[in-house]
Amino acid sequence: MKTIPGGVCAAKGFQAAGVRCGIRKNSTKEDLSLILSACEADAAAVYTTNLVKGAPLYVTKEHLKNGKARAVICNSGNANTCCGNGVAVAEEMCEAAARVCGIDPADVIVASTGVIGQPLDPTPIRAALPALYASLGADETASLNAAHGIMTTDTRVKSVAVEFSVGSRVCRIGGIAKGSGMIHPNMATMLVFLTTDCAIDAGLLEKALKTDVRNTFNMTSVDGDTSTNDMCCILANGLAGNEKITREGADFEAFMKALNTVTMHLCRCIAGDGEGATKLLECRVTGAATLEAARKIAKSVICSSLVKAAMFGADANWGRVMCAAGYAGVPAGLDKADVAFSSPAGTVLVCQNGFHHAFSEEEAKAILSEKEIDILLTLRDGAFSASAWGCDLTYDYVKINGDYRT
Amino acid sequence: MKTIPGGVCAAKGFQAAGVRCGIRKNSTKEDLSLILSACEADAAAVYTTNLVKGAPLYVTKEHLKNGKARAVICNSGNANTCCGNGVAVAEEMCEAAARVCGIDPADVIVASTGVIGQPLDPTPIRAALPALYASLGADETASLNAAHGIMTTDTRVKSVAVEFSVGSRVCRIGGIAKGSGMIHPNMATMLVFLTTDCAIDAGLLEKALKTDVRNTFNMTSVDGDTSTNDMCCILANGLAGNEKITREGADFEAFMKALNTVTMHLCRCIAGDGEGATKLLECRVTGAATLEAARKIAKSVICSSLVKAAMFGADANWGRVMCAAGYAGVPAGLDKADVAFSSPAGTVLVCQNGFHHAFSEEEAKAILSEKEIDILLTLRDGAFSASAWGCDLTYDYVKINGDYRT
Repeated sequence: MKTIPGGVCAAKGFQAAGVRCGIRKNSTKEDLSLILSACEADAAAVYTTNLVKGAPLYVTKEHLKNGKARAVICNSGNANTCCGNGVAVAEEMCEAAARVCGIDPADVIVASTGVIGQPLDPTPIRAALPALYASLGADETASLNAAHGIMTTDTRVKSVAVEFSVGSRVCRIGGIAKGSGMIHPNMATMLVFLTTDCAIDAGLLEKALKTDVRNTFNMTSVDGDTSTNDMCCILANGLAGNEKITREGADFEAFMKALNTVTMHLCRCIAGDGEGATKLLECRVTGAATLEAARKIAKSVICSSLVKAAMFGADANWGRVMCAAGYAGVPAGLDKADVAFSSPAGTVLVCQNGFHHAFSEEEAKAILSEKEIDILLTLRDGAFSASAWGCDLTYDYVKINGDYRT
Repeated sequence: MKTIPGGVCAAKGFQAAGVRCGIRKNSTKEDLSLILSACEADAAAVYTTNLVKGAPLYVTKEHLKNGKARAVICNSGNANTCCGNGVAVAEEMCEAAARVCGIDPADVIVASTGVIGQPLDPTPIRAALPALYASLGADETASLNAAHGIMTTDTRVKSVAVEFSVGSRVCRIGGIAKGSGMIHPNMATMLVFLTTDCAIDAGLLEKALKTDVRNTFNMTSVDGDTSTNDMCCILANGLAGNEKITREGADFEAFMKALNTVTMHLCRCIAGDGEGATKLLECRVTGAATLEAARKIAKSVICSSLVKAAMFGADANWGRVMCAAGYAGVPAGLDKADVAFSSPAGTVLVCQNGFHHAFSEEEAKAILSEKEIDILLTLRDGAFSASAWGCDLTYDYVKINGDYRT
């Protein structure tokens, strides 16, 4: 397996584009993206568990009932959530996209992201669709344009692809993502669009996605707020020409591994580009009694405002890590736990067997001043481990969210 | 019932003091407090549910097994948590306090608050105890001194008292509290010491405390971090001379109401003095299907970083309120919900039946620029309501917690 250019267009038969249609009044940023497959693709998706759901999610769920799709249309700048006629607007987006692409509206996945509660006017979207279709491309630039079109407060574009082998054939899987604030997925995720040319049974595709998301996007949190518009979907058009993967085994494992490489990359991008973030944090819990305990503790630590603020200040305040582990809601032998901080500058053990372990404050400061920090919590309860990803809490998070709408 | 001066000393027979013993090296603030009852008192307490518990909690639990106490000793600047010999140090604090007071060490409640994971040296505490005892007083100043001694990052002192009638007798209840960060109680609270001269059965005292805490301190959150050292205790010495309250009825109700007045005041003080806070927020949920739903939704809204940052920016971003209600983990008919913001400057309805309700941005800004904001979420699911208290998320929260230890 190796990383390749092309992002969401890396897989054969996928094109993408992103343009500015003018949903945000005071912005020159792209705000409308399209992804199109040359032929019908098997499709699977997971969605937010928030009771308040964006209107596009209802429409997409309906369209994916048959497990097939050909295109994704997504706008940024307005979430099309809590605004009355949202479902009609989302359906209109699908119809308009289907018309320019010459496909069935029921084969279109629709998504929106941005402010909640303001009516979304479909006029600029409809008007921009011919130009969006005309600018479709199949290269890295096209993927980046589409990735730009779905960004809100993101500061960095998120696009990646890998190639892998199934039998004698080379397959590709790639994707784009947006996500910076309101990031705390629960059995779903932010907006992630994945494409592959691998031929794979629709049931296995769904299983692969659901299994993977549990260890990647669902273990990522920027601010503890589970969005109303989270969605992660994958299109598999089979154009790589491999013998279709129809059962679990080596080929399915290869697919899972490639999928995980792409999603893990996007997760780290999202966490590292969290609103206002200066640092990417990973909390790795090992030696837990159960997988659930490992996951809950890792996520509790990564979500702690106090841990996040300490990391911003490069302060080795490990008591906050223990505190967050202690309120994770799962049993754990924290009186026998170790805590260490690790980064490219080194590793420092700060707590051993639940108690203070003497360390050099200077060394700890150097380690915590790096851009990527691992918080290592070692339990002695069992053999399970899990990782969670997040970011530091900074002045800029407050600034960005103190007045987001204007 | 009326508010009276005296705080934790308002009830007959209670004295208090606070001095600086020198636990914090670079501070001139008081860091050691003592509360003493003239006679043995019935006592009840609730504690943090964090798995990682401060050593003083283990000692206090042991001392309260017989439901009796006479004194509280509490230091700030060091939590005496995760530091090896913590229980021995906490016991030594009790013994030293008991010695100067001439009481049994088992009648002493001990508490600590401050940094986790650094050994607490009992030497300065032992050395300061005679002076602390000598400075005991029974007036407002004495209560304020004690309240100062238990503060950490608090910017305002928290002390209150009321008087109420039981039969023909006047009784008093008062208290002091500390709490500013790591505030997200769960079946317990920050540090709160309550005193009353009302004679009340020990079982009813415990019932009153546990019932009240569920609606007050457990509905308060500054940053979602449940502390390792939370404790709320009450001493009832019976010196008011009222006929002992031995069953539920009018007298017990009067006691509960007085207790609630004191705890509600302290809750609002704690939330309004949250680390870096510029605003006190109250989320009031009405019309919920169950009490649990009302509580969980109110707390979810008050804990949302995005809601908190919007309130800091005086931004009427009600979509974030709906979003937080949607991930509270309880069923709710949010498609029929209303959202309004209220403050001394007025009330503005921003969402009706789950959708945008036209409002004046200018008027909303004026309302949200006040120091105390009510977020009103009206459901149409049933007859239950609940309130939760918190504060806005500000630059100063990040500043305070970016480098707390140094």
